[in-house]
Amino acid sequence: MQYPIETRRHSAAHVMAAAIQRLFPLAKFGVGPTIENGFYYDIDIGRALTPEDLVAIDQEMKKVVKDNPEFARQEMPIDEAIALFDKLGQVYKVELLNDIKTRGTTKMSEEEAGDIDASNVDSVSVYTTGGFTDLCRGPHVEKAKDICVWKLHRFSGAYWRGKSENPQLQRIYGLCFETKEDLDAHLKLLEEAERRDHRKIGKDLDLFFFDDMVGKGLVMWLPKGTVMRNEVEKLAVEMEDKQGYVRVVTPHIAREELYLTSGHLPYYKDSMYPPMVMDDGTYYMKAMNCPHHHTIYRHNLHSYRELPLRLAEYGTVYRNELSGTLAGLLRVRCLAMNDSHIYCRKDQIKDEFKKVMELTMTYFRIFGLKDYWFRLSKWSPDHLEKYINQPENWTYSQDVIREVLVEMAVPFKEVDDEAAFYGPKVDVQFKSIVGREETMSTIQLDFVAKERFGLTYTDDTGEKNEEVFVIHRAPLSTHERFMAFLIEHYAGDFPLWLAPVQVAVLPVADRHNEFAQKLAAELKGNGLRVEVDESAESVGKKIRNSEKQKIPLALVVGDKEAESGELTVRSRGEKDQMVMAKEEFIRMAVEKVEQRL
Amino acid sequence: MQYPIETRRHSAAHVMAAAIQRLFPLAKFGVGPTIENGFYYDIDIGRALTPEDLVAIDQEMKKVVKDNPEFARQEMPIDEAIALFDKLGQVYKVELLNDIKTRGTTKMSEEEAGDIDASNVDSVSVYTTGGFTDLCRGPHVEKAKDICVWKLHRFSGAYWRGKSENPQLQRIYGLCFETKEDLDAHLKLLEEAERRDHRKIGKDLDLFFFDDMVGKGLVMWLPKGTVMRNEVEKLAVEMEDKQGYVRVVTPHIAREELYLTSGHLPYYKDSMYPPMVMDDGTYYMKAMNCPHHHTIYRHNLHSYRELPLRLAEYGTVYRNELSGTLAGLLRVRCLAMNDSHIYCRKDQIKDEFKKVMELTMTYFRIFGLKDYWFRLSKWSPDHLEKYINQPENWTYSQDVIREVLVEMAVPFKEVDDEAAFYGPKVDVQFKSIVGREETMSTIQLDFVAKERFGLTYTDDTGEKNEEVFVIHRAPLSTHERFMAFLIEHYAGDFPLWLAPVQVAVLPVADRHNEFAQKLAAELKGNGLRVEVDESAESVGKKIRNSEKQKIPLALVVGDKEAESGELTVRSRGEKDQMVMAKEEFIRMAVEKVEQRL
Repeated sequence: MQYPIETRRHSAAHVMAAAIQRLFPLAKFGVGPTIENGFYYDIDIGRALTPEDLVAIDQEMKKVVKDNPEFARQEMPIDEAIALFDKLGQVYKVELLNDIKTRGTTKMSEEEAGDIDASNVDSVSVYTTGGFTDLCRGPHVEKAKDICVWKLHRFSGAYWRGKSENPQLQRIYGLCFETKEDLDAHLKLLEEAERRDHRKIGKDLDLFFFDDMVGKGLVMWLPKGTVMRNEVEKLAVEMEDKQGYVRVVTPHIAREELYLTSGHLPYYKDSMYPPMVMDDGTYYMKAMNCPHHHTIYRHNLHSYRELPLRLAEYGTVYRNELSGTLAGLLRVRCLAMNDSHIYCRKDQIKDEFKKVMELTMTYFRIFGLKDYWFRLSKWSPDHLEKYINQPENWTYSQDVIREVLVEMAVPFKEVDDEAAFYGPKVDVQFKSIVGREETMSTIQLDFVAKERFGLTYTDDTGEKNEEVFVIHRAPLSTHERFMAFLIEHYAGDFPLWLAPVQVAVLPVADRHNEFAQKLAAELKGNGLRVEVDESAESVGKKIRNSEKQKIPLALVVGDKEAESGELTVRSRGEKDQMVMAKEEFIRMAVEKVEQRL
Repeated sequence: MQYPIETRRHSAAHVMAAAIQRLFPLAKFGVGPTIENGFYYDIDIGRALTPEDLVAIDQEMKKVVKDNPEFARQEMPIDEAIALFDKLGQVYKVELLNDIKTRGTTKMSEEEAGDIDASNVDSVSVYTTGGFTDLCRGPHVEKAKDICVWKLHRFSGAYWRGKSENPQLQRIYGLCFETKEDLDAHLKLLEEAERRDHRKIGKDLDLFFFDDMVGKGLVMWLPKGTVMRNEVEKLAVEMEDKQGYVRVVTPHIAREELYLTSGHLPYYKDSMYPPMVMDDGTYYMKAMNCPHHHTIYRHNLHSYRELPLRLAEYGTVYRNELSGTLAGLLRVRCLAMNDSHIYCRKDQIKDEFKKVMELTMTYFRIFGLKDYWFRLSKWSPDHLEKYINQPENWTYSQDVIREVLVEMAVPFKEVDDEAAFYGPKVDVQFKSIVGREETMSTIQLDFVAKERFGLTYTDDTGEKNEEVFVIHRAPLSTHERFMAFLIEHYAGDFPLWLAPVQVAVLPVADRHNEFAQKLAAELKGNGLRVEVDESAESVGKKIRNSEKQKIPLALVVGDKEAESGELTVRSRGEKDQMVMAKEEFIRMAVEKVEQRL
């Protein structure tokens, strides 16, 4: 029989649990769902796991599969199940069962809840495989041999039910595919992802770091990382400038009244930093820029002629993530956003949406992203209670957004009942260089800001019009995420315009240092970023260091160069070097930078 | 007899108090010291003051002066004084006396303490003038006619002893000069200052605002203010780039451990925003950038070749000022600093100090400031307990700083015993366009950071050297203060390179709008900031509006211009208009902007 891959992965999780139980009879089990490319199981074996444990568990799984036990399902009354798992010492399972019994649900995340059948609170199903009995709604494969090709590849800590006040379990991740070829292909992708890991490259190239005294999830941008960050910011400002954006600057905090008005308080409170009580009220660090921008819009009267008003700001926002969940640049507490809010009339929604789409495509072009598509999330007339009650605005705006997508001939999908409460949105999806599907950004239309903040304009008859539509957009995501993307995308081999150091000048001997410095000064005068390597190393070592630092261009400077006025140019990753006149080199480099190559 | 002006001003405060007591017999008096250009008195008359009250008090003062009572001094035991003021119902004076009695001091600010003789706690002196008796150490003029030429010019709220938990009194300010001419000259300066008031101009030109929902002292930069802010930032970055600074970006918060290391906690705690307790420690918003920068320096090893390392950041810091003390851009809670910390070897202190001085002078030149001087604050070998114990560093660094000031032939003063605990400093002083003496910035040497943060470098023999000197400097002050300065300095008539809108294009009639837009697009393409006035107003009104908006250049565009390719140019504040070829106009404008004119 051909089982769906999810069923096989889920069954593999049970087999792993059976193996663990054999090796660690006192092991306590949390939950063990399937995930993308595999499965995991949260366990507690009374001590920390080691890499050797993973090897042993893998061996034991092979034995279980060889024995080929069946997946035996049994329905039982919930109290019987509680007694069973209690006897087995499985406290976490007992806790889940008690939740099912008293509340009819385990109230966990969807991912985990999928594992357990809470639809019938009188009885539950349990599965037994190779001596391991699990609370589980199934379905499973018939026998252990039917599970997929697996590999246990890592483990990490995980709080029971994701809450930091709960005990910390250990989560073992397994990859699981239909065939060995699929698994190998995936492992290769993972290896490539590791080679491109932004944390490693960020450290090697001195781009950024985190410091315990400063705090978790708070990026410290080193000079070289700051150069790249500023280049990205310059690009965004230049592009937005061309599209008629204007820039504003707002503080990083605001009184709670602002967030009560926007509706972020109380609903979003847990994601915000804790309040600060001052002599004139309670303040919060901003977790988003929109309320500040709405306040700016509202500060002046606006005529219909002034719209659209596109307020842009590289605003830094702060979000309270659990310290245990923070990882590199991808999960941080401090986010510098390429943010903007576009205030427009209803008849301008289409044009403005199109402009944002065009901006997005321009970035795709500059960064060489070709594998992308868009997802239009719409409301559902069947679930009116979930959406702000402006049916005419919903249908109108969804139609014009669809028109934009069609006119631009981009690949897109429409999804019903996935919109935000306050308006339809377009997610910008792309596939990363290591095959990961990611949302780069979201273009979000907002019907509710005008009501909450009283955003209006004066129409051509002098009347007040209360229909100001807001588009939220940040096509370059946050500096943090985008930098992680850039590092992975280029594996640190940044194009000339982005590279922190563009040209390495490498004097052959000490007596060439002076000429090297003069040359460097001339290059700097032309706007290039240059470093001279005056160390006592051999020129061969200097070349290797410059390659290691991934500097795009290296100039070896010896007697010949000092006399001839010609330069010996090495391009990163190329074996051959070229000789060219200094002026030609400068023109070539400056031109590349200007064209963002 | 010729009295010092301070004595005459102080006596005027008593005469005002006497007048107030006559008009409001139940008035309670706080303190009434002299200040720059005059005096004030804090009072409580049981209701809010009105402008009419000031007129009445002024009239009554004239009567007191006409009566010409003497200033009668009387020494009395402190208990007798307490009984006296208690009987008079002067609760604030009784409080001060009790403080003197129990603690030997009134523990107020220096300014206020100067009023009362706390050197002898057994007896105090009181002065009586025109029926008003005051606790006061004097000295005073002999008779009321000897006070100076005064004018009561404003009043405001003031907390008793400057603490927000205390009752709010009302403070009446009086100007007071030797002659009517001096008073008139000062009033004229005040009038000019009012005309140049940055709050008024900031509002008129839509540069910035404050919003109650966002919070007090938190500047919201409107698009036009942001343009200016960015121009200043661009200037700073360009200048610093030329001097070899590198830029970094750090978060706006840090754990308390960082501030305990730097020593800001606990001593500076009251000036910082309240702590935020997170799942991994206690966080504070940063009130200064140095601890973050020291952390960056410490993150990598540094060789002697790499120094000086000049880390620069436009970092925004937050300071907890009492909400009642906040005023426009001059006293805010959110400060964006043109900040940098220079890490150098001892033998580099002189050069680095000189470079910062040169940078400062460049800014003076660009902004046309000619009336400046420098103050070198040194330690005192007589008060070693006040200063970090590195005598050799003190004498060495003070000597090289003096050498810099002498070599640059700038006016400077040396002041003993005025240095910070951790190193000597140079204050950059200038006289503002309305005659106010201001400190634009401070160049501060720091001997203590290396100890607190363990800042080291590897010397040319490979040994670790722990003598890393830090220079703190922010020659352009904060964006907030500097913008206030710019507005006042130029009275809103900003030079072309700084003006939020540089060129106004004014179509004569609707039919010229298209040509106007085309022209505007061409100017924008050349990097100029342009606005087209398409309103239905007459061209005369459009010109007046553009003058009111203080736009430096206006182009009136009618039939002639649309046909000829020549432009009619009006420069702000000039009656005559000029006709010139479009290309010439563009060249002229772009050149001015590039030269920062």
